[in-house]
Amino acid sequence: MAEENRVPVTVIGLGMMGSALASAYLKAGHPTTVWNRSADKAAALAGQGAIQAGDIKDAVAASDVLVVCVVDYTALRTILEPVQSSLAGKVIVNLTSGLPADARTTAEWAKSVGARYLDGYIMTVPPAVGLPQTLLFYGGSQEVFTEFEPTLKVLGGNSIFLGEDPGVAALYDLSLLGILWSSLSSALHGFALLASEGIPAAALAPFIESWITHVVQPSIAGAAQQVDAKQYATSISTVGLNATGLVKMVEASEGQGIRPDLMVPIRDLLAERAASGHGDEALASLIEVIKKG
Amino acid sequence: MAEENRVPVTVIGLGMMGSALASAYLKAGHPTTVWNRSADKAAALAGQGAIQAGDIKDAVAASDVLVVCVVDYTALRTILEPVQSSLAGKVIVNLTSGLPADARTTAEWAKSVGARYLDGYIMTVPPAVGLPQTLLFYGGSQEVFTEFEPTLKVLGGNSIFLGEDPGVAALYDLSLLGILWSSLSSALHGFALLASEGIPAAALAPFIESWITHVVQPSIAGAAQQVDAKQYATSISTVGLNATGLVKMVEASEGQGIRPDLMVPIRDLLAERAASGHGDEALASLIEVIKKG
Ligand SMILES: NC(=O)c1ccc[n+]([C@@H]2O[C@H](COP(=O)([O-])OP(=O)(O)OC[C@H]3O[C@@H](n4cnc5c(N)ncnc54)[C@H](OP(=O)(O)O)[C@@H]3O)[C@@H](O)[C@H]2O)c1
Ligand SMILES: NC(=O)c1ccc[n+]([C@@H]2O[C@H](COP(=O)([O-])OP(=O)(O)OC[C@H]3O[C@@H](n4cnc5c(N)ncnc54)[C@H](OP(=O)(O)O)[C@@H]3O)[C@@H](O)[C@H]2O)c1
Repeated sequence: MAEENRVPVTVIGLGMMGSALASAYLKAGHPTTVWNRSADKAAALAGQGAIQAGDIKDAVAASDVLVVCVVDYTALRTILEPVQSSLAGKVIVNLTSGLPADARTTAEWAKSVGARYLDGYIMTVPPAVGLPQTLLFYGGSQEVFTEFEPTLKVLGGNSIFLGEDPGVAALYDLSLLGILWSSLSSALHGFALLASEGIPAAALAPFIESWITHVVQPSIAGAAQQVDAKQYATSISTVGLNATGLVKMVEASEGQGIRPDLMVPIRDLLAERAASGHGDEALASLIEVIKKG
Repeated sequence: MAEENRVPVTVIGLGMMGSALASAYLKAGHPTTVWNRSADKAAALAGQGAIQAGDIKDAVAASDVLVVCVVDYTALRTILEPVQSSLAGKVIVNLTSGLPADARTTAEWAKSVGARYLDGYIMTVPPAVGLPQTLLFYGGSQEVFTEFEPTLKVLGGNSIFLGEDPGVAALYDLSLLGILWSSLSSALHGFALLASEGIPAAALAPFIESWITHVVQPSIAGAAQQVDAKQYATSISTVGLNATGLVKMVEASEGQGIRPDLMVPIRDLLAERAASGHGDEALASLIEVIKKG
């Protein structure tokens, strides 16, 4: 696209992430207006070529596309409600993190003021904004996603539209974050087990990489198929066998003087599944317990 | 090695894993004697060329190397104590799973009856026994590992000697298993979140693979370095930010009608770390809470 055809954008919220978003638009040659509650952060971006809006009214007036990235959905409403009479016909691309329910409420509100709405999640850290492999999930207006796809992809080449439900991107985000949080914290649990014997984390690290590639990844891929098919037959690794393994894990953690907290709910959910007559099933069948909220 | 030079082995315990071990030795041309509490499983292996020992005394007499793989360390003692006067000079390669303390007690006992001892862990499922990439961890007698390395590697090309502490392999095993259990169960948590909106696991699965490769693996590798250096500075992802994220995760899980159990201890450990004045540190600093048993 020739530079003069690039869609003007306004970036609202210039924290660590919002500043990275504005920089990506500036680098890609988009006319970029910026606004932040604390004006000093906008001034820094003005030095890179951004137009610093004097107030939120000017910020909204400057572009049809408003990219919002603030601490939470409440902050978004605090910022935009005072100018909601100017939002008709605007496109709100909300890259603020929250719950699916927050996203849906915000989408309803946007509709009520005549704005079109996309709810997005940036699946990386600020330094990776703008890279071709960077993943963003979107839910909400398909029409907006299609119309502005090249503009959205400035933030990450791997921008995925998941569906018209504005809450769907938040769900995907939480699902992947859960895997990160639990993998990382359980790796730390492992490092603590080793540390209790004076063994450094570096001794285990090389094995973790191949373990994740050759054992963890295939196990998750297999579990996805079993879950969708609700077929939990296995001749390899059962709920019962792993329930015993988790009991040992908790005992061993206590025996080594470290806190077993991270392993306790896995032990208890497996025991519950085994106790209800599913001990011979594959580990994936644990989802049936998790689903019973 | 010419076939006639291959070390005779006796495999004791012929469950799913023990049978795979015996088959691997038979395929590699080792004279292989087998024994199992329930004789029918030994008979099946005799059909593949194994020598079926009539009793445990004959099984022990048949080879200098005794590979034991039974349900737990208590079963090993139940089997071998009645013949302990015949164990002097034998090599016990114990591939039974348990706790580091079990391994150490069993090593002491083996020493007391004049046997040399290795405590090993097979980091895979029975069908992968004998492959070049198959990982086994060993602790105990360095001398035995070196002397019998080619014989041990019949079970897996990636056989690693970790140290003279007979409990060390159990620790490494638990550390990797913890990562598998928590990654897999949190992936199931994610599938349950999506299922609450009628979205199949297959929709998330392709993103999980790249998420694990590009985000999870580097996060764990980075955390290992931070843990060893006890340097928890970060400008990207803090304990405080993630503590907030986990609160949202638990709320969202409850909001979607699924059980938040797996996420609760991660939330609570992060909150505890943040409350003790470490909110600005990297996630890796969570290990300091886990260590306080
Ligand atoms: N950083 C990451 O790695 C990352 C990754 C993925 C997603 N995210 C998401 O991106 C969003 C922003 O994160 P961040 O890292 O940029 O956080 P941050 O550096 O803490 O910035 C927070 C932003 O929110 C604004 N804000 C907070 N409360 C406000 C209020 N009541 N009214 C108006 N503005 C308010 C702040 O304005 P002031 O400057 O005036 O305080 C600032 O612009 C969050 O939802 C986060 O979950 C971040
Ligand atoms: N299967 C795997 O994927 C896997 C992977 C890594 C490690 N392991 C470990 O390998 C070991 C064996 O597992 P497996 O999968 O082979 O289990 P399995 O199929 O259940 O076999 C259990 C074995 O233990 C014997 N046994 C149980 N109680 C006994 C007793 N009181 N006295 C004598 N023998 C007794 C059984 O003999 P009977 O036939 O007479 O019952 C059988 O040979 C376990 O420590 C397990 O954790 C297994």
